[in-house]
Amino acid sequence: MAITVVGSIAFDTVATPFGKRERMVGGAATHFALAASFFDEVRVVGPVGDDFDEAAFALLSTRETNTDDVERVAGGTSFFWAGEYGWDLNSRETLDTQLGVFETFQPKLSAASRQADVLFLANIQPSLQRDVLEQCEQPRFVALDSMNLWIDVARDDLVDVISRVDCLILNDAELRQLTGKPSLVAAAREALSWGPSSIVAKQGEYGAALLTAGGFFALPAYPLETVVDPTGAGDTFAGGFVGYLSHRLDQLDDEMTLRRAMAYGTALASFNVEEFGTDRVARVGAGELHERVAGLQQMTSLGPTREQEIQS
Amino acid sequence: MAITVVGSIAFDTVATPFGKRERMVGGAATHFALAASFFDEVRVVGPVGDDFDEAAFALLSTRETNTDDVERVAGGTSFFWAGEYGWDLNSRETLDTQLGVFETFQPKLSAASRQADVLFLANIQPSLQRDVLEQCEQPRFVALDSMNLWIDVARDDLVDVISRVDCLILNDAELRQLTGKPSLVAAAREALSWGPSSIVAKQGEYGAALLTAGGFFALPAYPLETVVDPTGAGDTFAGGFVGYLSHRLDQLDDEMTLRRAMAYGTALASFNVEEFGTDRVARVGAGELHERVAGLQQMTSLGPTREQEIQS
Repeated sequence: MAITVVGSIAFDTVATPFGKRERMVGGAATHFALAASFFDEVRVVGPVGDDFDEAAFALLSTRETNTDDVERVAGGTSFFWAGEYGWDLNSRETLDTQLGVFETFQPKLSAASRQADVLFLANIQPSLQRDVLEQCEQPRFVALDSMNLWIDVARDDLVDVISRVDCLILNDAELRQLTGKPSLVAAAREALSWGPSSIVAKQGEYGAALLTAGGFFALPAYPLETVVDPTGAGDTFAGGFVGYLSHRLDQLDDEMTLRRAMAYGTALASFNVEEFGTDRVARVGAGELHERVAGLQQMTSLGPTREQEIQS
Repeated sequence: MAITVVGSIAFDTVATPFGKRERMVGGAATHFALAASFFDEVRVVGPVGDDFDEAAFALLSTRETNTDDVERVAGGTSFFWAGEYGWDLNSRETLDTQLGVFETFQPKLSAASRQADVLFLANIQPSLQRDVLEQCEQPRFVALDSMNLWIDVARDDLVDVISRVDCLILNDAELRQLTGKPSLVAAAREALSWGPSSIVAKQGEYGAALLTAGGFFALPAYPLETVVDPTGAGDTFAGGFVGYLSHRLDQLDDEMTLRRAMAYGTALASFNVEEFGTDRVARVGAGELHERVAGLQQMTSLGPTREQEIQS
């Protein structure tokens, strides 16, 4: 039942109002794996350079994540990103991006990674996502993330690969941009018509919404007194969401299963943003994770249905 | 058990991607009254000019709202606002604001309005809100709305009047601005320390959050395929929220009562934005209102609490 994830493995330099950290291990595949490995075996596919040392591999292997398909490119340097967040952490500026070994990345999946039941295509070039999808044998659940860059420069490829996956996970503004529909409901309806059976619209500090043919669900972000570093929150969410589903592949038609998966994704994302980089998720325990999921349930409950509440 | 509301009664000219409407009856007190009158008798306090004709009064009197305290200023013109919304309706530009009779407004409440159990201080100058509050005899529940302008130019007055009310209803960005706290949780904690027992943070298309000493609750906006005109959504929400509570003044300590009130506010706000101005809320029926509240309950449910969902 392993989960294969393809995406960036990186070093991140991040400045927030709470400080600055240099060259932390990051990247979409890393954040995803740290979260999804709570639930199932994860196999990471992606390139790194000579600078990705043993300590970095050790972190990526948290909770026994398999790194056999991490490609070490001799003489190359790992993907590097540097960014700075504003005072309320809702805006950020990219200060530097160095693609490094990602520039010439051609995914080559091992037999074990090709046989995974579950596949997460993190945000990379849509043609590479399609390439990976075609290497996989018979995945039972495929989810995909993307970004505004690919909507701008490779929309046709992106729509094509979206049409082949089960679940599209995207920021809500990007979902609007992708579909040209101003309302979230209309945008999701359009994306569902391309093929996926579910759309997850990430809404940053406001949480996330789930849109399927039959329903709408929205879950707030877990409320925190202090957010230290939002980097990787979306991929951590995806890791919790996809990870939870990987043991429930025969219940994917049950919307409540998808909703519970969102709660696990949301809880894990809340741990992610409490400290820099992967620090907090790397050491989170099952007990505190369950506690946050139960907290989300309590914080969203409207109680039992009541009738005739208007008394005038 | 009447509800007194003090605030603007206006004419609004609104352009959205769905068209343009000239001089609709609007204003915070109007939108509030249209919603709150579902639940209880509402008494509106505010000034209008000679241009506020019989048809305008008829609309303001929907569901028997009492307009005895609407002050007709001879020779004056009513508050006028004109604005235009962007393609996704999340941004708007003010094209014109004419204060008219509002410029010299000094609230004078009749005995009946002073005796109301419930008071809503819509967004007006904080010193006028305090003046109204002092005229009221023994209100059992007072809620207050405000805006960035008063945070900029009259913060001390605003904090003073907030310290005397039970519930502060504010956009989340304004709550951050008011308290200087970047996180919603920290901002609400600060505002709660000034006196109110509950804070409602309005989050536009993302819904609203309720923060009390004991808890956090968040409710998404009711999902709509098309939003036609968001003007007045916040005041309609407040009308549903405060209106629902007006019959439950002995249950204000029960957080579930406040949550249910938010659901009624959210449902009414969703009707408000479906058509221009007050058109939709003026003719909404109890059946369809209950239906949306039940829908919100369904759309936010995570099901029963479960244990030990991590199987790895």
